[in-house]
Amino acid sequence: MPSIDLESAKALAGRLFDALLARTRDDPGVTRIAYGDGEQAAFALVAEAASAFGAERTVDAAGNQYLTLPGQDRSRRIVVGSHLDSVPHGGNFDGAAGVIMGVAAQSALAAADRSPAFDVTVACLRAEESCWFPHSYIGSKTALGCLEEGIVDSVCRSDSGDTLAAHIDALGFDAEGVRAGATWLCQEELLAYIEPHIEQAPALVDAGLPMAAVSAIRGSFRYRDMVCRGEYAHSGAMPRHLRRDAAVASARLIVALQALWERLEAEGADLTVTFGQVGTDPGSHSFSKVAGEVRLCLDVRSRDEATLARVEDELQSMAVAISTETGTQFEFGPRSGSRPATMAPHLVSMVNDACRSLNLPVHTMASGAGHDAATFANAGVPSVMIFIRNTNGSHNPDEAMAMADFEAALAALIRMLSRPASDWTPE
Amino acid sequence: MPSIDLESAKALAGRLFDALLARTRDDPGVTRIAYGDGEQAAFALVAEAASAFGAERTVDAAGNQYLTLPGQDRSRRIVVGSHLDSVPHGGNFDGAAGVIMGVAAQSALAAADRSPAFDVTVACLRAEESCWFPHSYIGSKTALGCLEEGIVDSVCRSDSGDTLAAHIDALGFDAEGVRAGATWLCQEELLAYIEPHIEQAPALVDAGLPMAAVSAIRGSFRYRDMVCRGEYAHSGAMPRHLRRDAAVASARLIVALQALWERLEAEGADLTVTFGQVGTDPGSHSFSKVAGEVRLCLDVRSRDEATLARVEDELQSMAVAISTETGTQFEFGPRSGSRPATMAPHLVSMVNDACRSLNLPVHTMASGAGHDAATFANAGVPSVMIFIRNTNGSHNPDEAMAMADFEAALAALIRMLSRPASDWTPE
Repeated sequence: MPSIDLESAKALAGRLFDALLARTRDDPGVTRIAYGDGEQAAFALVAEAASAFGAERTVDAAGNQYLTLPGQDRSRRIVVGSHLDSVPHGGNFDGAAGVIMGVAAQSALAAADRSPAFDVTVACLRAEESCWFPHSYIGSKTALGCLEEGIVDSVCRSDSGDTLAAHIDALGFDAEGVRAGATWLCQEELLAYIEPHIEQAPALVDAGLPMAAVSAIRGSFRYRDMVCRGEYAHSGAMPRHLRRDAAVASARLIVALQALWERLEAEGADLTVTFGQVGTDPGSHSFSKVAGEVRLCLDVRSRDEATLARVEDELQSMAVAISTETGTQFEFGPRSGSRPATMAPHLVSMVNDACRSLNLPVHTMASGAGHDAATFANAGVPSVMIFIRNTNGSHNPDEAMAMADFEAALAALIRMLSRPASDWTPE
Repeated sequence: MPSIDLESAKALAGRLFDALLARTRDDPGVTRIAYGDGEQAAFALVAEAASAFGAERTVDAAGNQYLTLPGQDRSRRIVVGSHLDSVPHGGNFDGAAGVIMGVAAQSALAAADRSPAFDVTVACLRAEESCWFPHSYIGSKTALGCLEEGIVDSVCRSDSGDTLAAHIDALGFDAEGVRAGATWLCQEELLAYIEPHIEQAPALVDAGLPMAAVSAIRGSFRYRDMVCRGEYAHSGAMPRHLRRDAAVASARLIVALQALWERLEAEGADLTVTFGQVGTDPGSHSFSKVAGEVRLCLDVRSRDEATLARVEDELQSMAVAISTETGTQFEFGPRSGSRPATMAPHLVSMVNDACRSLNLPVHTMASGAGHDAATFANAGVPSVMIFIRNTNGSHNPDEAMAMADFEAALAALIRMLSRPASDWTPE
């Protein structure tokens, strides 16, 4: 049996990254719209690469694509997956690195003539970046047949305004099947879901670590369309005690939530609080008017559901108190969110074992960002993520993953996929 | 000598308000662009009304218009004036009420055959609303030949993009003359500048008073193009201590300045602080990104130059402290502003005397908003303003001045203009 040729697998990955960049470039960065040209091009590229070593290709009702390397026992399955869409003008690695690493690992196993213990399926998932469809984890939810009722017909793509169902049908897939919960993955067959992904914060860069195992994924709640309503008034003439200043009220809410974050963090809670969009109304505001309206967008995340609930409670009381004191009103608008997820301890151990055996530093961390692995984990599929060091964050053209770090994580993944059948079915 | 016919003067004013509304209506409200059609129509309307009682009409290099009722002593002059432009979709009374009251008072004096002690000139001033040309008091400054050097060629109208000079020349006036400081008003001849104006805050409404004398006009400093620069980052992945969050930094600055206002007010200082425009960048922000940039617009006003200086000092230190603590940077951009102005005590007394003699309540207050009277006062011309009660503020279509309150102020103005020569030259 020939040995694993890591160099060739890495070279294949490099060619795939280059081809993907060339096909989806949209300076600055890349744009791969969910159910759009860029995502389609990416699906085709990796399918072509996998066909070179004879992987079986299937597609489900929602258009998720599965590339399977047969295992010794074909009744069970290990899935390596991620998404292939990107934010507009994003980087080349967010999402794609996981899929390409899966295909590179399959090619290395196939070239070495090693049949894994079970089928190894690379899942190319759809529509993970919620800038396109404002709903979490569409690809993994449709892959597991658990997309919430009605979503396929109610959620519209931000650029086209068309529903998810319309986009699914337009590409020749089967929205009706998605409505009925049709899937290709059989959940009982799933032994593991493994998602390699670039880290989106600088923790690994700061710590000088090439990769890490992920033990948990933060859940979230979001108010994307909050409005603070006050009253426009003359900036020079309106006295302080008569003002209903939406800019001041909004600023107080932002500062109060920041202070709450600091307090909870000091108590050991896991949390992020972000007001990513804030703005007075360009149609009505003026330098010489007290602000009568401010729109805000709030994103709160935690590994812990109790922390999310506590922040949401305190947010409501703060808003009431600030409204009363400033004569303004906060309207929260629709709430969206996702549940926190815990990764499977035996899979976290497998990642760490692989690092140890490769003389790589061992590190376990939580993911602040949401990932499809959360859907698999919350559906009861043992799941884990492998984070790859990445500079400059993600969702921007400057994300930068070194191929040496990709190689380290690829080597670890291949070690994992080479483990015997008994390791995948603990207890 | 016939007695003053206040009813006829009020009826003339009513006809002028109606005609002005009909000519400059732009639903909702009125639009009278500086050096544009609406301002031109307003100038023509009041000139026509003044020609009916034989007022002398002159125009200066910048296009300010002067309508003069001859007095007994023609070597000196009392000016009643205001502006005739409006903000887009503004109300019918801001500015126009002062000019129309001046013409109505002249017509009442002329009809009663009363020649005032000195010439009484109604000044129709240009371009007071700085939404058109972002520079304070263009009309009164050109009327006094004290427009700052270069302004006529550097300041452009917000809608056309053309310079003030181009607009002056396009209407047949004389930009070259404005550059050279040409005026028609001779400052040595000026005994008083009186500006009747609707109140732009609800102080008179709240106090149940039809009118008031104004003792001071707030000055200001403004940073219309402040930017807080931070760094975009993943909202779920970037830990608190590594963030450079421009939304949080900006919110802290707004809250800190609000607290400073409260503190200074408690110490008895006169002040307003307004962030009328605040916003993340719609081209780059996202609900899932830490805000990398926020634009802010700050307007600070006070009757007292020392208070303005103190707030500006503290603003700088606050911005440095917040920048340091949040890893962001505040860029203040261009500064603009105006000097506070003190009204002449003997003219304030004259307004109050007129109220007393008419059995009207006597009230003296400061003006939060800026007015052309500030230019006259700061140039050394004894000045005063008469505020008229007005509901719903100004700079909006809903401003509402009752004609009964206009009549009260008109009666007071006529009493003032009827005073003997010696009252206008105290000490």
